[in-house]
Amino acid sequence: MYGAGDVRVEDRPEPQIQAPTDALIRLSASCICGSDLWPYRGADPINEPSPMGHEYAGIVEEVGSAVSTIKPGQFVVGSFVASDNTCEICRAGYQTSCVHGESPGPAQAQSMRVPLADGTLVASADVPDDRLIPHFLAASDVLGTGWFAAVAAEAGPGKTVAVVGDGAVGLLGILAAKQLGAERIIAMSRHLPRQQIAREFGATDIVEERGEGGVDRIKDLTDGLGAHSVVEAVGTQESMMQAVRSTRPGGHVGYVGVSHDVTLPGAEMFFSHVHLHGGPAPVRRFLPDLMDRITRGEIQPGRVFDQQLPLEDAVDGYRAMDQRRAIKTLLTI
Amino acid sequence: MYGAGDVRVEDRPEPQIQAPTDALIRLSASCICGSDLWPYRGADPINEPSPMGHEYAGIVEEVGSAVSTIKPGQFVVGSFVASDNTCEICRAGYQTSCVHGESPGPAQAQSMRVPLADGTLVASADVPDDRLIPHFLAASDVLGTGWFAAVAAEAGPGKTVAVVGDGAVGLLGILAAKQLGAERIIAMSRHLPRQQIAREFGATDIVEERGEGGVDRIKDLTDGLGAHSVVEAVGTQESMMQAVRSTRPGGHVGYVGVSHDVTLPGAEMFFSHVHLHGGPAPVRRFLPDLMDRITRGEIQPGRVFDQQLPLEDAVDGYRAMDQRRAIKTLLTI
Repeated sequence: MYGAGDVRVEDRPEPQIQAPTDALIRLSASCICGSDLWPYRGADPINEPSPMGHEYAGIVEEVGSAVSTIKPGQFVVGSFVASDNTCEICRAGYQTSCVHGESPGPAQAQSMRVPLADGTLVASADVPDDRLIPHFLAASDVLGTGWFAAVAAEAGPGKTVAVVGDGAVGLLGILAAKQLGAERIIAMSRHLPRQQIAREFGATDIVEERGEGGVDRIKDLTDGLGAHSVVEAVGTQESMMQAVRSTRPGGHVGYVGVSHDVTLPGAEMFFSHVHLHGGPAPVRRFLPDLMDRITRGEIQPGRVFDQQLPLEDAVDGYRAMDQRRAIKTLLTI
Repeated sequence: MYGAGDVRVEDRPEPQIQAPTDALIRLSASCICGSDLWPYRGADPINEPSPMGHEYAGIVEEVGSAVSTIKPGQFVVGSFVASDNTCEICRAGYQTSCVHGESPGPAQAQSMRVPLADGTLVASADVPDDRLIPHFLAASDVLGTGWFAAVAAEAGPGKTVAVVGDGAVGLLGILAAKQLGAERIIAMSRHLPRQQIAREFGATDIVEERGEGGVDRIKDLTDGLGAHSVVEAVGTQESMMQAVRSTRPGGHVGYVGVSHDVTLPGAEMFFSHVHLHGGPAPVRRFLPDLMDRITRGEIQPGRVFDQQLPLEDAVDGYRAMDQRRAIKTLLTI
């Protein structure tokens, strides 16, 4: 990405092993993330040409001398933050805040370098069938992020869960809430194709209103109390306040939309009595379980990919996602 | 209170039963709350003469016709929000957000009216000895509030807990963390007499620095990671950010200082990975347990009362607390 709206597909040097804990992987597929749209739309500055992409699944080609559990030939998935998975923060399940965390990638590419390979990558038992690739690729970020949001919101049996945001992460937050046993799942969406996927993933109710109107509808559906659990998957001031105000006292907001110019009013938060938790999803915590569910065919998170383009046409993918013509674009290698 | 700095002790009409769910109680003692200092200092507006006080313990004198569990002659303690204790929010443990919540009191008085008596008041098995009165009175708010903060911060075995604020609530947050089994408790205080009570209540470390310096000291004491659990018991922008920044990724902030002009920066909260929970403490949730601990002599929360004055000298009590000459003033009736 050279600047807002300016994406180019270029030849770049092949990635190399730089540290003995690195691995190189050949991507089975790549994709474009909703968060890539922030700089594409000028909301995050691009000061120099920036290679893009942080979601990946592929075959290990080479590992550094200190890598012991990951082997060439394995099919692996990793998270957008490389982590040692041994520090106290990782062991507590917050690998995206690993004390040795660094960025893998870039992943909108044919091959890439993954630092801290043993702590970052999770290998499948066998190299999966091609038709499972989109599901595994989704596990790398959007599924893990939606899952973390649902866990942070304490979605579970007996709970009413509301989901703010109908992008890939919001939709997969619905899937996660369903898998976690939520009783009722309210999708906040005004886009028919997204509503359809929401229902497929487990939404029981659709609310089309936004802002105060949306909050009122959630209250109407919950005896005036608000939802027990609310997933926030957008990251704007409006969506955050919609999430907080849709939550009952004592309920939980799980927020994973990267906060852009959001400020939370202290007194309102105080009197709301909500629990607030979120941040960059520690996908690594959930990856083994999510990959098992995909292998067993229990979940099809790759359903969020509604456009598929060759990597060399990535420019069209950015444009389609920016214009909301595509939920999420898979790039074939 | 007639305005900032203007407290008067006046005769007022005797409280009366107004609803069949009311009780009238004769206070065994009353007290001044740190939150009473916000209007006293002009930080909350006083638009008309306002009777003060919301902490109470005393003997039931009369009950309304619909009151079934509370009886005249019982010694009772209640919270600063009257609650039905039967609605869905109460049953979830958030009685201060009860759908029928209302204010009891005023409690800086000889007798007072308590609405929703069955849901609000907790009676002790026997009328306690006079020397236990300060401890029971503390349970009405400051102990319950410190306890809620420690619970919201998930203080417990193996945890390092930091406490921001050395008022009565902060000190009782230390006591709560100790009772909940915390391994290490860091009190943030620069006042020697308060440090002494902090140590009596279970603090293992004292940090005198504030703001960024205080955060740095907490990091020094926790391998650079921050505390697992942080209690915020002040309510200012500085104290809130001190609490958030003292917490490790994945850790918990329990905040009970009433937020005054606080705004939380969304992006910093997002990347901090902390859990945030707090608000007006649902003291009623904890009262039966806290009263049992007091009866058994396991805790002495009344230690925070370091000044005792007759009710008619309440003006001097406000002045002493405002000037930080007293931590908390007990008013004898």
